[in-house]
Amino acid sequence: MRRVSLFAGLVSAAIVATVSLHALAQAKPENLIKQRKSAMALIGWYFGPLGAQVKGEAPWNQETWARNTAYIEVLSKMPIEGFQPGTDKGDTKAKPAVFSEPAKFKSAMEKMQTEVAKLAQVAKGADQAAMKAQFGETGKACKACHDDFREKD
Amino acid sequence: MRRVSLFAGLVSAAIVATVSLHALAQAKPENLIKQRKSAMALIGWYFGPLGAQVKGEAPWNQETWARNTAYIEVLSKMPIEGFQPGTDKGDTKAKPAVFSEPAKFKSAMEKMQTEVAKLAQVAKGADQAAMKAQFGETGKACKACHDDFREKD
Repeated sequence: MRRVSLFAGLVSAAIVATVSLHALAQAKPENLIKQRKSAMALIGWYFGPLGAQVKGEAPWNQETWARNTAYIEVLSKMPIEGFQPGTDKGDTKAKPAVFSEPAKFKSAMEKMQTEVAKLAQVAKGADQAAMKAQFGETGKACKACHDDFREKD
Repeated sequence: MRRVSLFAGLVSAAIVATVSLHALAQAKPENLIKQRKSAMALIGWYFGPLGAQVKGEAPWNQETWARNTAYIEVLSKMPIEGFQPGTDKGDTKAKPAVFSEPAKFKSAMEKMQTEVAKLAQVAKGADQAAMKAQFGETGKACKACHDDFREKD
């Protein structure tokens, strides 16, 4: 029974993965690029005001921390699906390494997702020092991935 | 005591609103337009596969319903903040009515948010008919707002 359930689960997961990959494979490269750039733009949009508060350029606003980090946690899950094979050319700053080293790229994306999730968690509390520290860790994960996988502006 | 708390709450809310508006007022119009267009592009991106399933063009995939509607519920909160005064010109299809009838526009946006939240709620269950029906209601809210406030492509 357990083996049957496990088998059914694997088949189910395989079907889901196949359907998802099929749908993404059908998407036009320019739309996939637009998808990931939109997600990245919004991550930057909601990250920016937090950086200003960390640097003391804007007054601390706990509601902004709670809201923006919750938004970023969801947004952080989106960009990876836009980096499908065949989207290395076009209106993109993605380096060839995204596509030649996909495991390393996926790992860097997951590191960012992990740090963002931690940031959203501490931002539910009131410990500003913890928020600032985790903001720094998150920024490092963003920068590490940009350094390796994104052309400079 | 209760009146003091209420007063403190109102002052707090006013400060939050002031800080947020101040930050948005400082944002460049082109960045505000990019913010709202990015959010709308992602809403469309995650709405699309659901429409294909409703129309029977793609196999039903409950995981896609749960994931995409949860994403869209968060994304639905984002576009409104990009429609600040002074963002009526530039790379935008926003009609002048967005800025000349802000109360009507806000109401149309909130209608969309309400329908999307209902969609995310039913998508947590297993009632495909309910999902299809609420998908239709959500689509109507999108279309109504686009008809009144967005130039045709």
